[in-house]
Amino acid sequence: MRLRNNPDAMPFLQEHADLVFINPRDHLGKWHEVFGNNNPIAIEIGMGKGDFIIENARRYPNINFIGIEKYSTVLTIAVKKFLEMETLPNLRFMKEDAAVLGEVFAEGEIDTVYLNFSDPWPKKRHSKRRLTYSSFLDVYKSILKDEGHLIFKTDNRPFFEFSLVSMNNYGARFHDVCLDLHHSEGYEDNVMTEYEKKFSPFGPIYRIDIDFGDMNG
Amino acid sequence: MRLRNNPDAMPFLQEHADLVFINPRDHLGKWHEVFGNNNPIAIEIGMGKGDFIIENARRYPNINFIGIEKYSTVLTIAVKKFLEMETLPNLRFMKEDAAVLGEVFAEGEIDTVYLNFSDPWPKKRHSKRRLTYSSFLDVYKSILKDEGHLIFKTDNRPFFEFSLVSMNNYGARFHDVCLDLHHSEGYEDNVMTEYEKKFSPFGPIYRIDIDFGDMNG
Repeated sequence: MRLRNNPDAMPFLQEHADLVFINPRDHLGKWHEVFGNNNPIAIEIGMGKGDFIIENARRYPNINFIGIEKYSTVLTIAVKKFLEMETLPNLRFMKEDAAVLGEVFAEGEIDTVYLNFSDPWPKKRHSKRRLTYSSFLDVYKSILKDEGHLIFKTDNRPFFEFSLVSMNNYGARFHDVCLDLHHSEGYEDNVMTEYEKKFSPFGPIYRIDIDFGDMNG
Repeated sequence: MRLRNNPDAMPFLQEHADLVFINPRDHLGKWHEVFGNNNPIAIEIGMGKGDFIIENARRYPNINFIGIEKYSTVLTIAVKKFLEMETLPNLRFMKEDAAVLGEVFAEGEIDTVYLNFSDPWPKKRHSKRRLTYSSFLDVYKSILKDEGHLIFKTDNRPFFEFSLVSMNNYGARFHDVCLDLHHSEGYEDNVMTEYEKKFSPFGPIYRIDIDFGDMNG
């Protein structure tokens, strides 16, 4: 999600260092200490305005959530929304780029990675920027536990087609594929993003759930 | 495709033994002799009334085609249609069940397998009957060349979702996935089946192109 840059965003985030990690590399391998428990850790990469991860943190108090967003202006919106609500001790935020998350989390430190409605980068020459390109799958594989899952949703058909091929060719194992999430049984617990609420009436939402666990098995 | 059984079907097929293989095991490993050349061989499993394979045989004279159908009544319709047309020396028909094609073709004898709008067997307890279930993938892998392709089309969303997971879990390599064949660029050479012509206005046609070549690589 792109917004006009807000010059007040970075100072605001720095004021909330208890909630927002600006230099998250300091916690590599020690994220359980941040939360003060050994609960599973789920991250959302490119969380936008935060509706998805805030609702998840509310529903699942025994899972620790980290919402990751590289744009400070967007991240500020999510943090402000969070500050207006009840306290959720299992939710933190991070300003970081997906490409370097292998420097932020140790191998196998994460239980679930969520990718929701990431930028489809529709031009072929930009395909390496798509968050399901093999170089990004390297990152997710590295930080996920063997039995950890990556769950990806998009409404962009060419991006989902690309992602199915990319994930398969990478050697990921498909657990579940849904080609019309809002008109399928068995997904009643789906948490919608703000984008999903707005655009799902206009076409199918695609979803895939994979792991990298037995790639060498 | 199911039709009321026609008692005249088998005698009709037997009368056309030059076109229709009733006991195809006799030709195992020697299918090139049947066609009298070394051109690639493509088969369609469950060809129905034959529009797809007849049009392919017409377009691609340097590929040998075999249309396979287990129901004699349906097969008869395709053969009658064929007999009304110009001669196509690169097309034959076969009455056979997909499950036993490993006894009909030698390992690596086939270049392309087409599966078009197969029965989706929607009940979970019938999932083993779906032509993309692992036991059928065993058959296709066995008869296909290493670089041979399996191309599958359906309009049945749950069947396609199942097939994506089944093919991925089997270790097949995805070349291309299309989630709306009739509204995508790059598929202008798509040959429609009679079912596809009738039902494509009512929802997307799904298509996947895979191989089994480097499964052990």
